[in-house]
Amino acid sequence: MKVVVIGANGQIGQHVVKELQQSDTHSVTAVVRKEEQAEKLKVNNIQAIVADLEGTVEDLAKAISGADALVFIAGSGGNTGPDKTLLIDLDGAVKTMEAAKQVGVDRYIMVSAFDADKRQTWNEGIRPYYVAKHYADRLLEASGLNYTIVRPGGLVNKPSIRKITVGVEAKPSTITREDVAHTLIATLENKKTYRRAFNLVNGEHSIETALNNLD
Amino acid sequence: MKVVVIGANGQIGQHVVKELQQSDTHSVTAVVRKEEQAEKLKVNNIQAIVADLEGTVEDLAKAISGADALVFIAGSGGNTGPDKTLLIDLDGAVKTMEAAKQVGVDRYIMVSAFDADKRQTWNEGIRPYYVAKHYADRLLEASGLNYTIVRPGGLVNKPSIRKITVGVEAKPSTITREDVAHTLIATLENKKTYRRAFNLVNGEHSIETALNNLD
Repeated sequence: MKVVVIGANGQIGQHVVKELQQSDTHSVTAVVRKEEQAEKLKVNNIQAIVADLEGTVEDLAKAISGADALVFIAGSGGNTGPDKTLLIDLDGAVKTMEAAKQVGVDRYIMVSAFDADKRQTWNEGIRPYYVAKHYADRLLEASGLNYTIVRPGGLVNKPSIRKITVGVEAKPSTITREDVAHTLIATLENKKTYRRAFNLVNGEHSIETALNNLD
Repeated sequence: MKVVVIGANGQIGQHVVKELQQSDTHSVTAVVRKEEQAEKLKVNNIQAIVADLEGTVEDLAKAISGADALVFIAGSGGNTGPDKTLLIDLDGAVKTMEAAKQVGVDRYIMVSAFDADKRQTWNEGIRPYYVAKHYADRLLEASGLNYTIVRPGGLVNKPSIRKITVGVEAKPSTITREDVAHTLIATLENKKTYRRAFNLVNGEHSIETALNNLD
């Protein structure tokens, strides 16, 4: 698959791009916000495009045109305020869905947040972020795209263990960023994950087994 | 119609409640955030209920149960940050839609913002607010409720002139809060406004004529 990664410069994004680049079955285009980020990727022979999630749907459509699948891992990050959460995590995300519809990129993988579908679980301090993720997910579910929504637990930078638990079995816990990246790539062509949303934490099954056993 | 007004203590809300209270054909329940606001309304013989848009869908469902129509005019206001915009103008609004579905309040009137459906027109400073309104509108359109979305221009406190322009004819301009209130009430049983969204400014037609001529 030709995979376009939005938010390719983030911590998970970098893992995803690297792994796709080394893959025999996929190719990757990294979408980044700044020219200097793109230059750095190109030095490493990675195809990179500059596009702004605060820009127009048309510009985003140009950036993703020709891809078979889109992975959305962009986020406004912890250092910006809730205004950017609204503009990036919600509106930016939905604009990429509209762009994907426009140019026929049918497969869409979204990185969401643990229990983003369950309002009652959202902690006070992080509620605005969860609202943005919640509605981006809802708009994706209503978009008609062939989506997978992955909702990881607390992200950590430990080494990958390639063992996960997904769906209803996944209790609040953590997961390495590298294992999130492995899982995202494993969903790409796994039909059991089509039009599905699920929580994801490090756990006890191989990634393939866990995804195949989604009920 | 039994009309429940969410955000009854706001400037437009107060006009709507007062006018519905004086109406021969409608009755009104004011939903407000604070007990003291409810007490004040009750002194004036207005039925009032305290409910929090940051609370649960279940609590909101209780507050609106038994109504025929809901008017949503709540807003986090200019003195709070974009975190409250997310929690009130977006999530709070959508929770009232879910509550309305739950208890069978089928008619839903939303006060939105001028051109909230057109991203390219949003001014930089007010973009986060527009994102929240935009998605609340989209979720309402997808809710299955019998909605009307009213998108007023710049709100002013001048006296009502009872003349408006709506829809594609409405160029960016202002409207008195009282005329917004008149228009909201006029939409309640006007079938031409069912499942419609339109801009609203002060203009040249009577309210009834303007609404009946919506194309």
